[in-house]
Amino acid sequence: MDPLDRLEATILARRGADPAGSYTASLFAKGRPKIAQKLGEEAVETVIAAMAQPDKLVSEAADLVFHLIVLLADAGLGLDDVRAELSRRDGVSGHDEKAARPAS
Amino acid sequence: MDPLDRLEATILARRGADPAGSYTASLFAKGRPKIAQKLGEEAVETVIAAMAQPDKLVSEAADLVFHLIVLLADAGLGLDDVRAELSRRDGVSGHDEKAARPAS
Amino acid sequence: MDPLDRLEATILARRGADPAGSYTASLFAKGRPKIAQKLGEEAVETVIAAMAQPDKLVSEAADLVFHLIVLLADAGLGLDDVRAELSRRDGVSGHDEKAARPAS
Amino acid sequence: MDPLDRLEATILARRGADPAGSYTASLFAKGRPKIAQKLGEEAVETVIAAMAQPDKLVSEAADLVFHLIVLLADAGLGLDDVRAELSRRDGVSGHDEKAARPAS
Repeated sequence: MDPLDRLEATILARRGADPAGSYTASLFAKGRPKIAQKLGEEAVETVIAAMAQPDKLVSEAADLVFHLIVLLADAGLGLDDVRAELSRRDGVSGHDEKAARPAS
Repeated sequence: MDPLDRLEATILARRGADPAGSYTASLFAKGRPKIAQKLGEEAVETVIAAMAQPDKLVSEAADLVFHLIVLLADAGLGLDDVRAELSRRDGVSGHDEKAARPAS
Repeated sequence: MDPLDRLEATILARRGADPAGSYTASLFAKGRPKIAQKLGEEAVETVIAAMAQPDKLVSEAADLVFHLIVLLADAGLGLDDVRAELSRRDGVSGHDEKAARPAS
Repeated sequence: MDPLDRLEATILARRGADPAGSYTASLFAKGRPKIAQKLGEEAVETVIAAMAQPDKLVSEAADLVFHLIVLLADAGLGLDDVRAELSRRDGVSGHDEKAARPAS
């Protein structure tokens, strides 16, 4: 099983667990603003690692992915929605990358 | 093929392309600080979407993943390194989530 | 007049101006999520400048302050509220810095 | 004295203090990447407050300003450099806001 999907399954399984015993459950219990804040903080740590601490980059990227999955799950979404979005962009754009690039 | 891996393959294929014709190639050409900046900006947009524009969340998450893969690639790393890190945490922690949770 | 207060006065004066002719007015017209997003993006640019482009740090800091004042103004707040908060912390803590430091 | 300048004076006075007894001194001791990371995190908290917890906005803005001054100080810069930059933009642009707005 793809470790990304296994992580997502673990996150979903812990959503209803006791917040006192699970970091994941405590995040869900704190709610959307706190989860979004943590995602932002992990992104900042990923930026810092990329600039000055490359040996920490993979670990920070893993933390970022973890919190992204929690944020998606809190909104009733998941990795497969992201995959579908990527496939949609790929299909729409064909060999034209411009159509698939971020709008911002 | 997993759309995430297909995206990564596309990103790697465009690394050496003409920056004038490819957003991905232009990112690599601008270098690490600009790539890291874009990752941070996409994370901010993901936070805003999660708080106020949930219909944009999947699209922003896809943008965030795109720029994370570019940042990893710029450092000679990739999704499989993140997967290995997640598996390592899973193996180390077993049923003890605390050992696998982000340190921060 | 303190340039910070002059900037704030200018921002407040432009709040009701034509968005087509004023960046400040266009920010207010776009609303809170967009203003907050811009603040986040300027913070990311400040982080990058501090890490890799120190000659840009003052300019990025000025951009960050500009967007912070816009965000405060959008919420009916201003620099004097921040000054009052700093004075309050200073008064409460006396020589005990710990009481005044950020909680996070 | 402007509370912003008093805060900056306090920060500068603590730069060489014992990190064990001063949050400010501990930040300087940890170095630029950690200071920049904290600035980014406080910006994220300001964004979240602006979107969902307006009663916390002034406090988060004060935290953001605190860490911005620490970051500037770590680079040998200060609030007066930001003020000079704002005055420079004001002088250059006159009534033409476009020349003074952030480039990004």
